[in-house]
Amino acid sequence: MTLSPDPLIDFRSDTVTRPDDVMRQAMAKAEVGDNVLDGDPTTAVLEERAARLLGMPAALWTPSGTMANLIALSLHLQRGDRFLAPRGAHVITDELGSAAWLAGGMADPLEHDAGPGRPTPETLSAAIGGGPTGPYYSLRTTLLCLENTHNSAGGAVTPPDEHARLLAVAKEAGLTVHLDGARLWHAAVALEVPPAALTVGVDSVSACFSKGLGAPVGSVLAGSPEFIERARRMRQMLGGGVRQSGVLAAACLVALDRVDDLAESHENATRLAGGLAEHGWEVNEPETNIVLAAAPDLEGRLKWLEGLGIRVLPTAGRIRFVVHRDLSAADIEETLHRIRTGG
Amino acid sequence: MTLSPDPLIDFRSDTVTRPDDVMRQAMAKAEVGDNVLDGDPTTAVLEERAARLLGMPAALWTPSGTMANLIALSLHLQRGDRFLAPRGAHVITDELGSAAWLAGGMADPLEHDAGPGRPTPETLSAAIGGGPTGPYYSLRTTLLCLENTHNSAGGAVTPPDEHARLLAVAKEAGLTVHLDGARLWHAAVALEVPPAALTVGVDSVSACFSKGLGAPVGSVLAGSPEFIERARRMRQMLGGGVRQSGVLAAACLVALDRVDDLAESHENATRLAGGLAEHGWEVNEPETNIVLAAAPDLEGRLKWLEGLGIRVLPTAGRIRFVVHRDLSAADIEETLHRIRTGG
Amino acid sequence: MTLSPDPLIDFRSDTVTRPDDVMRQAMAKAEVGDNVLDGDPTTAVLEERAARLLGMPAALWTPSGTMANLIALSLHLQRGDRFLAPRGAHVITDELGSAAWLAGGMADPLEHDAGPGRPTPETLSAAIGGGPTGPYYSLRTTLLCLENTHNSAGGAVTPPDEHARLLAVAKEAGLTVHLDGARLWHAAVALEVPPAALTVGVDSVSACFSKGLGAPVGSVLAGSPEFIERARRMRQMLGGGVRQSGVLAAACLVALDRVDDLAESHENATRLAGGLAEHGWEVNEPETNIVLAAAPDLEGRLKWLEGLGIRVLPTAGRIRFVVHRDLSAADIEETLHRIRTGG
Amino acid sequence: MTLSPDPLIDFRSDTVTRPDDVMRQAMAKAEVGDNVLDGDPTTAVLEERAARLLGMPAALWTPSGTMANLIALSLHLQRGDRFLAPRGAHVITDELGSAAWLAGGMADPLEHDAGPGRPTPETLSAAIGGGPTGPYYSLRTTLLCLENTHNSAGGAVTPPDEHARLLAVAKEAGLTVHLDGARLWHAAVALEVPPAALTVGVDSVSACFSKGLGAPVGSVLAGSPEFIERARRMRQMLGGGVRQSGVLAAACLVALDRVDDLAESHENATRLAGGLAEHGWEVNEPETNIVLAAAPDLEGRLKWLEGLGIRVLPTAGRIRFVVHRDLSAADIEETLHRIRTGG
Repeated sequence: MTLSPDPLIDFRSDTVTRPDDVMRQAMAKAEVGDNVLDGDPTTAVLEERAARLLGMPAALWTPSGTMANLIALSLHLQRGDRFLAPRGAHVITDELGSAAWLAGGMADPLEHDAGPGRPTPETLSAAIGGGPTGPYYSLRTTLLCLENTHNSAGGAVTPPDEHARLLAVAKEAGLTVHLDGARLWHAAVALEVPPAALTVGVDSVSACFSKGLGAPVGSVLAGSPEFIERARRMRQMLGGGVRQSGVLAAACLVALDRVDDLAESHENATRLAGGLAEHGWEVNEPETNIVLAAAPDLEGRLKWLEGLGIRVLPTAGRIRFVVHRDLSAADIEETLHRIRTGG
Repeated sequence: MTLSPDPLIDFRSDTVTRPDDVMRQAMAKAEVGDNVLDGDPTTAVLEERAARLLGMPAALWTPSGTMANLIALSLHLQRGDRFLAPRGAHVITDELGSAAWLAGGMADPLEHDAGPGRPTPETLSAAIGGGPTGPYYSLRTTLLCLENTHNSAGGAVTPPDEHARLLAVAKEAGLTVHLDGARLWHAAVALEVPPAALTVGVDSVSACFSKGLGAPVGSVLAGSPEFIERARRMRQMLGGGVRQSGVLAAACLVALDRVDDLAESHENATRLAGGLAEHGWEVNEPETNIVLAAAPDLEGRLKWLEGLGIRVLPTAGRIRFVVHRDLSAADIEETLHRIRTGG
Repeated sequence: MTLSPDPLIDFRSDTVTRPDDVMRQAMAKAEVGDNVLDGDPTTAVLEERAARLLGMPAALWTPSGTMANLIALSLHLQRGDRFLAPRGAHVITDELGSAAWLAGGMADPLEHDAGPGRPTPETLSAAIGGGPTGPYYSLRTTLLCLENTHNSAGGAVTPPDEHARLLAVAKEAGLTVHLDGARLWHAAVALEVPPAALTVGVDSVSACFSKGLGAPVGSVLAGSPEFIERARRMRQMLGGGVRQSGVLAAACLVALDRVDDLAESHENATRLAGGLAEHGWEVNEPETNIVLAAAPDLEGRLKWLEGLGIRVLPTAGRIRFVVHRDLSAADIEETLHRIRTGG
Repeated sequence: MTLSPDPLIDFRSDTVTRPDDVMRQAMAKAEVGDNVLDGDPTTAVLEERAARLLGMPAALWTPSGTMANLIALSLHLQRGDRFLAPRGAHVITDELGSAAWLAGGMADPLEHDAGPGRPTPETLSAAIGGGPTGPYYSLRTTLLCLENTHNSAGGAVTPPDEHARLLAVAKEAGLTVHLDGARLWHAAVALEVPPAALTVGVDSVSACFSKGLGAPVGSVLAGSPEFIERARRMRQMLGGGVRQSGVLAAACLVALDRVDDLAESHENATRLAGGLAEHGWEVNEPETNIVLAAAPDLEGRLKWLEGLGIRVLPTAGRIRFVVHRDLSAADIEETLHRIRTGG
């Protein structure tokens, strides 16, 4: 057994990014208070800034994107309500079923027939059926949950016009809309629009600071002031009410200063995909920071990459490379070099 | 406004069948006891007979098929577990989401690529993915829920060999299997096999006495003795523990005597479909007692049928005619006559 | 080992009463329909009559009192809400915790300091505390659940004036009130008031036909028309939506004709308690049909009674005798005879 | 309106303590990793140290004590199980009912008849009743939840011998035992025993670093390795799986270095209680860091203290002063001075 090349190059997720010194100093100097009793001042600054960026009236810090989504679904859904989301959505596939057992929702995945991560308005409309109406003994469809960028579809972007068309169908049918915007910043940078251009009409949106932006912990849920008050209670119920969250919010604020840097990750993803394609691999054309590579022999390919010191994760039968701020252009070149020469 | 033709012909569901005098007399004479405290004697007879017919070691009477399914899913699923079922399955579409909010399951529908109501083993296998295994932070797939006959697919039958192939895939992957057999009697009659030939390998099966067999109230859930003991507790929790259930079980026993009569309903369904096809309608070839007719203008067509005194329900964009023991061959002829002459 | 005297005398519960011929003939002749799709006509008659008797605008048949209570609590409570009920209330003690895991309620029992089964208004008021108000991170108290008669307190009655005082406290504090009236008919007969005199001001009330009145299966939940519409949906979710429920409702209607007969059970309970007291046992003064006897050596005493062919159940450390319509004055005499001569 | 005296003296909770420079520097220098994917190294050090201190084989960091308790109850309880806890326990009173709606438990409070916060073994035994056994239709009692120190009973301590007697009763009856040790460090310091002496025999214990010890965010749940693996999954489900938790764990490690400082808070609490008693107030004899003062006119008294710049919270009809590391002996003197001269 040979040793793995050093250093390991970690494409498993953009959650592996670490806080740098600037971020850590911001944390060390953050003004703090008891966020359950009084509201922590730095958290309040973050919530206000995030709300404004997301184009929503109010926002609430949460320890994770999973909790932000869980709170939203718990508040939007009545017991047993059906909700729709593009196939492979994080709320369906990556949150351990909490949308069902905690939020009480009956999931139904939508096919991506408009492009990666996106259903057509027609598919959405057909799936909605009677929506929230119908006889008392019928399942009710009350919520659409979008995801922009769509992680498991390869960081795929939904542009504002497609977003608007889907919103129109959902709203016409009387549905509530939640947007899982864990990587909404990536979509905004890729599309060169403000994030708020991608939340038009939604009832709530979540966004993360720990995915590709380097913050150690923290997400945000945004919506109407009334919704956020209910979310605050639900966060407390779930055990997400923490005390001096300002130390974490300070890092999230630094992360927000760095949103534009995501463009570099996107370029690196494009570089990686290009190199893999040249090498004969079948890959997506990355719209943001995620490269998906087909792998006929998935298990073998994963092992081979591991032997090369390249860390990845499988997703829905493909190999997922997530590019992030802790990987430089040189790391991409090194990755391609190892793959080309790896035998 | 003109009066509807008399009598109304009711194809909305086979749940509309009514107990006849023989059944009512059986109810009137049933030996009864307190089924919560002691076990009701007539209910015990029914449970034993149903278990034997279904090829399972034990069975439990429940007030409805919905409750039988709900108990099964609640016992089989751990919080957040993903379960698979053919698209349009009753547990996904027709039980108001209780599989999610009560049983805590994350639903994922399987396409019918082997035929109406049936996924191929390959589709099933791909959907299972890692099944119940995987890292601690991943969704677990633990249950397959089949439905035979499959109601919304038009009373479609899964024959024993296809059943066996699906079971093999599920069991190999470590899944539990529940069979929604609300109309399993129909499948057995259509296939000319004993019902037990259609439950091979399953962990639990539900079956109904009020669908096409005339019993007013009652279903059964069958499985291992240990499973049934847990089911008894869950039934009590849900409020399904009733006292002198023997009055209902007596009717269910009469219903069981009449399973072979279902063949007549199947012939009538074939007759109805044939007549509709001759009249130019696009219909399924009914495998049991359900006819599905395409309807470009669904709302208009429903109204038109209502005006003819023909009662139906829409299902997934089509018109569903359910044939049952309270409809004779003459009723079918009358139905076709009204449609042909209805303008 | 000696044989038990024959016949067994069954004081375990008034749920053991069986339908007689009159009731069975009513069942056999009942007009029925599909109660999920259309509303069953006999069930509709029962619901209307029960609603009127209970002084409520609308009512819904359910298969059990447990389900009626469960529906009510599920609709009244928001996730995690605290509810109050007299210690030993059926919703706390005898429904397998479904008030918690299904209805999501945090139970808090009230002491019986006003008399058996009844808290004082002061105790209630102190327990309510801030009620539904308070900071976002605080438990909310939103529901009072009364029980009349109170089963485990020995069939204890809450008279109209005490009921009114408790209601005043609860309503003043902004609480919703549900009344578990499984044996409300007993209370009404004992107090010689109409049942509606005991429901003044409540938001919902459940009542049973299978406890002491001989109906095999069936209860009712009453409330506002809007509440009952929501209850209908919840009943369906829980699997309590059954088809030709008229066969059962017919028995419930006969049971209603017999409410006045409960007075005889009350007399028999008084006779039994008197005889036991004469024999030196420490018993309650029965207010309705339940006798509670202290038993220093509970296990031994239970076994001894079993040997005498007298069937009872323990409740909260005492022996409970429930008198009912299938026990005559002669049965009471025989019971006392066996006890006096039982050694 | 007059201005409040400056500075405000904050006795509302010991959660208001803030990280100091030493703690902040530890956070700034912490070695971190992705705690969901790999385990964060600093978090691992904390978990190991906390487990050892608590006398348990394994531990898991959580964002809050509420989440640690919620995970424990969710894993220990089956649907509808009854659990016992001393009246006013945090899991009953201060977690917004999540023990019911999320963990599915039916709460039953135990009276404090052995002393503040502590039931006698006899009271516990009587409450347990049949425990986890009994007929299938009966409520099951499966869990005892202790709290040491007991917050709402005034920071009351349960010494090792009383703990052992309660454990013996619970274990004999087949119950699982969880210990809410949010302030277990306080109990250990007050009793001059190691924390592990207070966890003997329990199945799980939670403890907090943000209550009186200055850490901004963080608690721990300890138990068997198998239990902790299940807890890790549940933490992820609830949205408590965060990434570079090392920045928080570093603060928790510093907090652990400071446990002995709690003695100073206890002395200050005694000083405060003494001064209030001299001034004629009716107060508890504080066993740790909490002083409870009776207040006939609670609302008036709260307002009066607010006017003096003394911040407190009411708890169960009394005024609660929580002393903590951010309050010095001089702050206590100033508090007493304001009260004596406050008119």
